[in-house]
Amino acid sequence: MKVNGIHYRTIWVDQEDVKRIMIIDQRSLPHHFILEEIRTVSEMAIAIKDMHLRGAGLIGVAAAFGIYLAAINATPEEDIQEVIHSAGHQLIDTRPTAVNLAWAVHRQWDILKAENNREVIIQKALETARIIADEDAGACAAIGQAGLKIIEDISHQKNGQPVNILTHCNAGWLAFVDHGSALSPVYAAHDKGIPVHVWVDETRPRNQGASLSAWELNSHGVPHTIIADNTGGHLMQHSMVDLVIVGTDRTTITGDVANKIGTYLKALAAKDNGVPFYVALPSSSFDWKIADGIKEIEIEERNPDEVKFMEGLCEGELKKIALTPENSPALNIGFDVTPARLITGLITERGICQASKVSILNLFPEMKTDG
Amino acid sequence: MKVNGIHYRTIWVDQEDVKRIMIIDQRSLPHHFILEEIRTVSEMAIAIKDMHLRGAGLIGVAAAFGIYLAAINATPEEDIQEVIHSAGHQLIDTRPTAVNLAWAVHRQWDILKAENNREVIIQKALETARIIADEDAGACAAIGQAGLKIIEDISHQKNGQPVNILTHCNAGWLAFVDHGSALSPVYAAHDKGIPVHVWVDETRPRNQGASLSAWELNSHGVPHTIIADNTGGHLMQHSMVDLVIVGTDRTTITGDVANKIGTYLKALAAKDNGVPFYVALPSSSFDWKIADGIKEIEIEERNPDEVKFMEGLCEGELKKIALTPENSPALNIGFDVTPARLITGLITERGICQASKVSILNLFPEMKTDG
Repeated sequence: MKVNGIHYRTIWVDQEDVKRIMIIDQRSLPHHFILEEIRTVSEMAIAIKDMHLRGAGLIGVAAAFGIYLAAINATPEEDIQEVIHSAGHQLIDTRPTAVNLAWAVHRQWDILKAENNREVIIQKALETARIIADEDAGACAAIGQAGLKIIEDISHQKNGQPVNILTHCNAGWLAFVDHGSALSPVYAAHDKGIPVHVWVDETRPRNQGASLSAWELNSHGVPHTIIADNTGGHLMQHSMVDLVIVGTDRTTITGDVANKIGTYLKALAAKDNGVPFYVALPSSSFDWKIADGIKEIEIEERNPDEVKFMEGLCEGELKKIALTPENSPALNIGFDVTPARLITGLITERGICQASKVSILNLFPEMKTDG
Repeated sequence: MKVNGIHYRTIWVDQEDVKRIMIIDQRSLPHHFILEEIRTVSEMAIAIKDMHLRGAGLIGVAAAFGIYLAAINATPEEDIQEVIHSAGHQLIDTRPTAVNLAWAVHRQWDILKAENNREVIIQKALETARIIADEDAGACAAIGQAGLKIIEDISHQKNGQPVNILTHCNAGWLAFVDHGSALSPVYAAHDKGIPVHVWVDETRPRNQGASLSAWELNSHGVPHTIIADNTGGHLMQHSMVDLVIVGTDRTTITGDVANKIGTYLKALAAKDNGVPFYVALPSSSFDWKIADGIKEIEIEERNPDEVKFMEGLCEGELKKIALTPENSPALNIGFDVTPARLITGLITERGICQASKVSILNLFPEMKTDG
């Protein structure tokens, strides 16, 4: 998508130095637009863990490039397969809830393990990372077209009045390589001239909504309003939300959705008020192996200081302020799981299905393991 | 309750100068403990509107003292009844959702309108404000004893394991004159030696949980953990919450509860997970005249800058930081309404009742208007 009129992806190989992966340092948004160069797998692991970049799709692609950096930096003395193996584990360990991360690492492992030649391994690692990036962007574009129909239908019902869409966290283009998942249908509708307005959940404690989603929508010119996470229920009670679309970090084969903490609360409010609640995802975010999201998905616990302190712009500089009594402990749970029963549908690159095993496997029949 | 070993109320008449009302300036908490003197009704109206003090009970008491300040400062040329009337409207207009505010003003009006003598009016205004303050503290103490039974029962079921209580916003002693509503049973249980632990919702956008409730609990030595507002659903899904207790700014005769924005989302999660959800209130927070909370309670919309900026401690000073893109609009809704169907019970100074007209009027038979 565009930033100041120039098209960017969220991650790319530097044109002048193929050993350098470039990313947008999302920690400085929305206040400053800063690019960062990543030269080693350890730098990439830090960038993922400390959320220089984040988002379901993007961290998978970043991990794939991380494997490539490990390979290209391996010394002649090192066993390159061992380096790749160890790099993969280093990357997977950064963010336990996200399925794309492990998925991308395993894809690199599967392709590279058959090779012996160092140059071929490096070449294939780069090629695979680029393919994963292009697939991610392509899947997100397709999600946009699939979700566009839902927004168009509501727009017709409202006789062209703006469609009010609530979203939580950032599942926009900054969370992927381009376009985004939850925001991709919004961009598609806006670009087609359908009036839309987005309620942007602030998304405490890291404020990805207030900083990243608002910045994206602002940059693209999509009407939007930032709200505290507490506000969505009231808006739904008063018919001020036509549709909820969120992303996901991991979705079970049965349609349970792990997403940013607080998603479950919005799904409950949507159900209570008859508001359609959709989850947008590329199929790389499915975890085909597990059935019970609440019991089986590992939920990341992050540093409590993310709750106790907050960073923002003060007199032109980024400053961190304390919000709580110094002695009070805090707990920082990164994700929650929304059970399939609360979800109207899943918007994938192959179209829309229900949040149920039967419906998901109808759309992805190659994942049927028996019968 | 105690601060650094000294007992404080949240509002009192200065012992040396009866024209001076003292309050705790809650805007500086949890970082600094600052007292503020209020000398005029306009200063009191600003203190209420800009939330130097806040909370269902306290703003009613503050309004009662505001009427007293208007009376004592009336010049001989002014019609004192006119001054009192106008002061009341000035106070009521500061916070439209809170019922105690209007209730306290009307109580002063009703008592003072029959008087002619200036000195008697001033004396009665002061006396009434003091009575309202004492009643508030007394009702909160009684709420503590009524709610204590609920916590004791859960403690027995858990064989003395800590009872995990989630609360939203601040309905502690800072929201009243003393003891609090939602936190009063918690203090009563803690003081009785029953192990309790409080999940403190941060309560965006003004962070009354992270600042005020955490500060109170910390000062009193009650184990607690601060969480982002998004977290409660996950905790309830994983049996980490035994009980929710919140306060209210206005409760209808049918049991619909207006409270800090986001309360409704917690009530939905409690219902979905079979967690008891109680609302604690002195009967002054009932609005006996309305039946449909969602349709009839006026909901305060506050300055969007409360969403866009946040204040906290940075290198020893209170600093305000920007959280959002400069151009992105925000909406700041102060309260939401939790329908009676989601509420397990109401904890009042007369005991516990269901959130229904029949049950409420059984406890307060004098409010029956017919039959």
